[in-house]
Amino acid sequence: MRTLFHLPISPYCRKIRLVLGEKRLPFEAIVERVWEERPEFLAMNPAGEVPVLVEDNGLIVPDSHVICEYLEEAYSDTPLLGRTLAERVEVRRLVAWFDGHFADEVTNRFIGERVMKRLSGRGNPDGTVLREGYAAMKPNLKYVNHLAENRTWLAGNFLSLADFAAAAHLSCLDFIGDIDWSRVPAVRDWYARMKSRPCFRPLLSDRVSGITPPDYYANLDF
Amino acid sequence: MRTLFHLPISPYCRKIRLVLGEKRLPFEAIVERVWEERPEFLAMNPAGEVPVLVEDNGLIVPDSHVICEYLEEAYSDTPLLGRTLAERVEVRRLVAWFDGHFADEVTNRFIGERVMKRLSGRGNPDGTVLREGYAAMKPNLKYVNHLAENRTWLAGNFLSLADFAAAAHLSCLDFIGDIDWSRVPAVRDWYARMKSRPCFRPLLSDRVSGITPPDYYANLDF
Repeated sequence: MRTLFHLPISPYCRKIRLVLGEKRLPFEAIVERVWEERPEFLAMNPAGEVPVLVEDNGLIVPDSHVICEYLEEAYSDTPLLGRTLAERVEVRRLVAWFDGHFADEVTNRFIGERVMKRLSGRGNPDGTVLREGYAAMKPNLKYVNHLAENRTWLAGNFLSLADFAAAAHLSCLDFIGDIDWSRVPAVRDWYARMKSRPCFRPLLSDRVSGITPPDYYANLDF
Repeated sequence: MRTLFHLPISPYCRKIRLVLGEKRLPFEAIVERVWEERPEFLAMNPAGEVPVLVEDNGLIVPDSHVICEYLEEAYSDTPLLGRTLAERVEVRRLVAWFDGHFADEVTNRFIGERVMKRLSGRGNPDGTVLREGYAAMKPNLKYVNHLAENRTWLAGNFLSLADFAAAAHLSCLDFIGDIDWSRVPAVRDWYARMKSRPCFRPLLSDRVSGITPPDYYANLDF
């Protein structure tokens, strides 16, 4: 059975779970507590990070970007990168924006302080980091709202990896209750459409010890 | 004329300069002082980072990973990602390892403290960060040495994007004189082969105000 080593509240892992679901590729998800630095896991991925996908034929594919490019080449029935060169640049640009810029400024601050510190026993959230995260969230979500207002899907008129990358980040932030949806109505409408896709269901039933998501987290009419 | 907005001592920009050179795609390189947040530049790349490639047809391609995938699809004469799915996973895995893990632990610490702080007028290098960088450099270069000892090129028996990503990081560290080559002889032999490629020449003549590279930086028999 195809196996995904992951952490539930990681945007990079959630992106892969969504993409595998969208491409209808069945997999077993195994939680990997990366901070324990398990030698068998480090042998699979010297970078020591999740996600890592292991195919039935034994091929080990680490890193969410590497996994996405691999899945696109290996299973091209449900293409998620666009057709033309310009479309593919725009999809990959937005994925890089969410996984790089948005992660640095927003997601990693909240997930690092509120989730990873708790899970790995590294103390309490640092209020300064969270305040920086809130300050950065406003202009960044405004940019996403601008995209959602002007396009059917985030990268254009087709559903793409950009939507799954974005939904992965926002769903992590929503899990810990940190998004004020009333400020970004176009993002909320787009996210409601994403949330109602079958591939999203497993994410909505994620539970993490010690963290209770808000009631509307799993609600499709939030 | 194809244009690359870049910074000379950025591993991500150097990777693109090497790849453009290897693929024999002429370009004009323009230094972009990203910390000045020039509005015209932010309009091209909302992430505000270099490299950004602008093609003759007006297509704007930001982000080193996006540029590499784009160049591979648009100019496939000199393929740099490998042929089989497994080869492509290994090439991309190593690129992600250098641009993610190695950058976080090593390159960004040195470049951030010794180069970016000076260029953007943000004070003196933080000794603690540099010490962390030196401590992390040893095990990381040991892993690269292991690859160089056991393979013709870093990802296998073919020259690939992994070699250019690696050479980009090591050439930045070499520019500021922070690599003890005697500890990693296999890396030195591999780097000497990389350095002698025509695409490398422009990097060896880079000069940055206030930073003098060591004498051996531009020497092919270092």
